[in-house]
Amino acid sequence: MDQSRTEGFDAVDVIRTKRDGGTLSGPQIDWVVDAYTRGVVADEQMSALAMAILLRGMDRDEIARWTRAMIASGERMDFTDLPRPSVDKHSTGGVGDKITLPLAPLVAACGAAVPQLSGRGLGHTGGTLDKLESIPGWQAALDNDRMRQILTDVGAVICAAGTGLAPADRKLYALRDVTGTVEAIPLIASSIMSKKIAEGTGGLVLDVKVGSGAFMKTVEDARTLAGTMVGLGADAGVPTVALLTDMSTPLGLTVGNALEVRESVEVLAGGGPADVVDLTLALAREMLALAGITTDPADALADGRAMDAWKAMVRAQDGDPDAALPTARETHTVLAPADGVLLALDAYAVGVASWRLGAGRARKEDPVQAGAGIELHAKPGATVQGGQPLMTLHTDTPERFARALEALEDAVTVGPEGSRPATGDVVLERVDRPLA
Amino acid sequence: MDQSRTEGFDAVDVIRTKRDGGTLSGPQIDWVVDAYTRGVVADEQMSALAMAILLRGMDRDEIARWTRAMIASGERMDFTDLPRPSVDKHSTGGVGDKITLPLAPLVAACGAAVPQLSGRGLGHTGGTLDKLESIPGWQAALDNDRMRQILTDVGAVICAAGTGLAPADRKLYALRDVTGTVEAIPLIASSIMSKKIAEGTGGLVLDVKVGSGAFMKTVEDARTLAGTMVGLGADAGVPTVALLTDMSTPLGLTVGNALEVRESVEVLAGGGPADVVDLTLALAREMLALAGITTDPADALADGRAMDAWKAMVRAQDGDPDAALPTARETHTVLAPADGVLLALDAYAVGVASWRLGAGRARKEDPVQAGAGIELHAKPGATVQGGQPLMTLHTDTPERFARALEALEDAVTVGPEGSRPATGDVVLERVDRPLA
Repeated sequence: MDQSRTEGFDAVDVIRTKRDGGTLSGPQIDWVVDAYTRGVVADEQMSALAMAILLRGMDRDEIARWTRAMIASGERMDFTDLPRPSVDKHSTGGVGDKITLPLAPLVAACGAAVPQLSGRGLGHTGGTLDKLESIPGWQAALDNDRMRQILTDVGAVICAAGTGLAPADRKLYALRDVTGTVEAIPLIASSIMSKKIAEGTGGLVLDVKVGSGAFMKTVEDARTLAGTMVGLGADAGVPTVALLTDMSTPLGLTVGNALEVRESVEVLAGGGPADVVDLTLALAREMLALAGITTDPADALADGRAMDAWKAMVRAQDGDPDAALPTARETHTVLAPADGVLLALDAYAVGVASWRLGAGRARKEDPVQAGAGIELHAKPGATVQGGQPLMTLHTDTPERFARALEALEDAVTVGPEGSRPATGDVVLERVDRPLA
Repeated sequence: MDQSRTEGFDAVDVIRTKRDGGTLSGPQIDWVVDAYTRGVVADEQMSALAMAILLRGMDRDEIARWTRAMIASGERMDFTDLPRPSVDKHSTGGVGDKITLPLAPLVAACGAAVPQLSGRGLGHTGGTLDKLESIPGWQAALDNDRMRQILTDVGAVICAAGTGLAPADRKLYALRDVTGTVEAIPLIASSIMSKKIAEGTGGLVLDVKVGSGAFMKTVEDARTLAGTMVGLGADAGVPTVALLTDMSTPLGLTVGNALEVRESVEVLAGGGPADVVDLTLALAREMLALAGITTDPADALADGRAMDAWKAMVRAQDGDPDAALPTARETHTVLAPADGVLLALDAYAVGVASWRLGAGRARKEDPVQAGAGIELHAKPGATVQGGQPLMTLHTDTPERFARALEALEDAVTVGPEGSRPATGDVVLERVDRPLA
């Protein structure tokens, strides 16, 4: 580190500039990200800056520079020498969002390499690694050599991101999580894109969730975030496409860890809920197009190649794909309140309830229950009868039912026969151009 | 501490409420201030909240509750059993603001008790304790019994605030200082008033500075702050009046520690610069009115009673009022750039220059130089000749002159003969009613 680079900067000046609605200069951004990573800028200074960014915003140049500074804070991976074209997918996080599990082996089965560096869940959305860890034996940690080997042999790997990749983002994300500054579009965009660009993927498909269960509550915000990230990808030479997808209600019929693995395996076996299948195929098509592969992923799903890739991928990380999945010790059934049409089943409420049942964690050191979560027996649009089972809650610790039920109090809306839910297709929009 | 009080609150929820423009509930405020004091709410969470408060504001009820919560974080003093009525003064801080030094003994000489709990300087404004510490032998620390004894015998005491008074404010102020969140009117008002109310004064006069050398740059902001504080005082049963006073140019002709003590003694001896005398008398009249004392302070200044009280006050804290004050080893003279009328001598620039000469500190553990500072040889409105001495810079460390002179680069404005400066009287407005 060239100490002279840090000369002439002051954290309070940088904070004040953004606080008062100004534009941060490139050198200010480079300095503050680097100095924060080194511990010269303190957590309390960065959190004040993050709040100022959240409330004042950042322009495209500021976001691009911030992203580059975060990439520069750590190592970069490179998969250009693999025998397969690499392409990755990132979801902004939703309730019941197990799509990565069937998607990565499906795209690998079609000939691409999918290097999925994933995280654990925090709050009401589950984490991909938490879900896979419910498979007996499965290990999230891999060294780089092993990761490259699996990518070459199987074509898909889902593992924990090493600490060397964008360490600035790792530190900043943990800070934002406890300081109410997660919901800043410039920080969300640069956090996601810095990791994905540093990861070295050749192309990127973004699943930007919209609705109560997502960070982005409105299509407008989701469009802004998607366009911002597409621009960041383009600027970094990583072709990037985004789909805006519905997160007003949970994806599929399960929310939890082992419960979602079970549903993912159903999809890989050619079954599974329509919305999960539709979204998996839509994302697979985008990924394959970026990788220059013309195989139809529906064929790979139908003929068992995707399932073969899944089993190989799980085995490569010491998991047993044929072992029975853990189940929760206790269940509680929620009944439909009336006859009629299920108009809404709120994603956020179901996510919070599942979290409270033990499927998620409040602090990053908390354990999760493999079997906890929620099974849905109907989705919006379905005709229901008062008293029929609507959801089954699962947990090992039945004292959690009360608070989970509290979260679900206003989750269900049943309308008169003939009424229709506001939501429809899972894919709402496609964004392939940078924000104007 | 009743742990149940902390149940059901979450720091991120509190931050988000304010971030999104909402109103914090009373229990939320009580909890967050208390939990921050106990270390349950972390620095990085409080700094994000402070930035949200700065950018979103607080209503009168929120500020009053926040102030009460800060008072409740520590002990309260009580001077109602003293043989004199107690009354205090607080200045929001300015350049060359030595007013407390002549004012406290002057008001004491007229029959009131003035319990001045003061602080050290940080940044471009000096601290009252730093100034007094340039007097040989003088000690800032006093225990409560000794403080009460001096208040009874002499009537005035200027000492360091104990750590038991509003500890939440102490912790929060240090945090705001490094996170760019000092300039939030609700936090400034509650910080000042929590300490003054906890201090137990019977009445309070506020000197709210306006101009380049003050936190409040505009009369509008100063009026808002003054009205907010007057309201907080009234709500707490402490009659409070504020004067808005000019801080576009330094007060008096000296800026620094020993230099300002010297000027204060000149005022107590019946001389001194007109603006310092005027402001001292204006504040003394307000304080005496609140204390119900009808003595004219101009008489006590003229007949030497104020000087007697000063000497007694200094001696009571082991200082020698007759000892020679320290002087700096080196001086450098700044000359007038042209013939004409001195239109402006910027307070902020002079404050920064004095700080850089060694009179102030950048971090609270830094030492200050007793002799460092700036003497002014002319004030705005004076006719000057090009080449005549305008300022003398004082320091023990001459390598500091260059950066001090840099700060002064645009400090001086000389206009053609017959022109007049924008500034006039030192007292701009009087505020005795709460903000509507």
